[in-house]
Amino acid sequence: MVNRRRAPRTDTAPPFRADDGRWQELLEIAARIFARKGYRSTTLQDIADEFGVLKGSLYHYIRSKDDLLFEVVRSVFSTGLDNLRRLAGSEHDPVERLRAVIRGHVLYLIDNLVETTVLLHEFDQLSDERRAEIPIREYQTIIAGLIADAKADGLVKPDVDPQLAALAVLGAANWVYRWFRPGGGRMPEEIANQYADMLVDGMLVRGELRPASGLR
Amino acid sequence: MVNRRRAPRTDTAPPFRADDGRWQELLEIAARIFARKGYRSTTLQDIADEFGVLKGSLYHYIRSKDDLLFEVVRSVFSTGLDNLRRLAGSEHDPVERLRAVIRGHVLYLIDNLVETTVLLHEFDQLSDERRAEIPIREYQTIIAGLIADAKADGLVKPDVDPQLAALAVLGAANWVYRWFRPGGGRMPEEIANQYADMLVDGMLVRGELRPASGLR
Repeated sequence: MVNRRRAPRTDTAPPFRADDGRWQELLEIAARIFARKGYRSTTLQDIADEFGVLKGSLYHYIRSKDDLLFEVVRSVFSTGLDNLRRLAGSEHDPVERLRAVIRGHVLYLIDNLVETTVLLHEFDQLSDERRAEIPIREYQTIIAGLIADAKADGLVKPDVDPQLAALAVLGAANWVYRWFRPGGGRMPEEIANQYADMLVDGMLVRGELRPASGLR
Repeated sequence: MVNRRRAPRTDTAPPFRADDGRWQELLEIAARIFARKGYRSTTLQDIADEFGVLKGSLYHYIRSKDDLLFEVVRSVFSTGLDNLRRLAGSEHDPVERLRAVIRGHVLYLIDNLVETTVLLHEFDQLSDERRAEIPIREYQTIIAGLIADAKADGLVKPDVDPQLAALAVLGAANWVYRWFRPGGGRMPEEIANQYADMLVDGMLVRGELRPASGLR
């Protein structure tokens, strides 16, 4: 488990109070409450209570509840995207890169379970303007690109549609937020490896040899 | 497309007014609004307005908004489960039954997109008592059972965990509600067939021949 936290989120920039050490804490509290109660059902009073301030003091950090949702979503999305891009751009052949991307996506999701729950379950609650700031289709584009590359190399079955296959990969991987519970008896690496192998092997030309597991 | 609506939902039993022809219409309207606005954000006034009655008249049909959510969820879940059980119990070998189950699940979801959206996105909004009435794990149990059967027959790779693989299948298939739009250029059969092949082939012992496509 030592190497698991390979992609800590580090890019969160507060919109107003970059110098306040409690901003990260506020975001973590908001994410936890959004994940537990749902965004719509969460009040600023809930957040202030857990943050240990009067509700009015929250306006030191934010203008509205939407600011908190946006920062939680933006942060976990963009660090996850950087992670995916790094894995997708490694030197391995496209099939191995695809395995690495799926593994990395599952591990990142599990490592940031609360925030990815908010991203995946509450994204539509963002205002139109703020949704437009988050290139949510990028994950699909990256994965479909790798599948198309592998198909061009003759490694993926000719009848596989890269976009559909990418959606299947993302669905399987993203769904982990719906059932994974820390301490529930599943090791994140086990899930990540099984998903990567099953999803990738399902696209490959029949009889294609599995590459050596150099990345494990 | 003629044969597509293979599993129309027919089992909806209203709790109070079984004889009222408008009950189905009320459920459809509630499902549409829940899917569009989210359960929490929907008011009984929204529903009454679209149903064309005064809010008070809704109490002719229901005691609370929760009654509507429960009936929408229960109906689409139980008909879907019957559908899955039928496909899982056919005479084919377990691998073919698994393909049929995945295809059938995807097609059912697309055919009942509004109601499955409510089921998949709002299930947690049900009261504990009502959630307990819906055996939500059954889909996973059926699919994992087929995978275990195929594994016992030596058709599925020995390192595949049937429960994890079933969760991957359900995740990929369920996620369709997040991106499928009628008229969006994807034929339901195309999605169902690609998903069934990709997800099943990914579990099979390498080099295993794909069975003839007798079910298509």
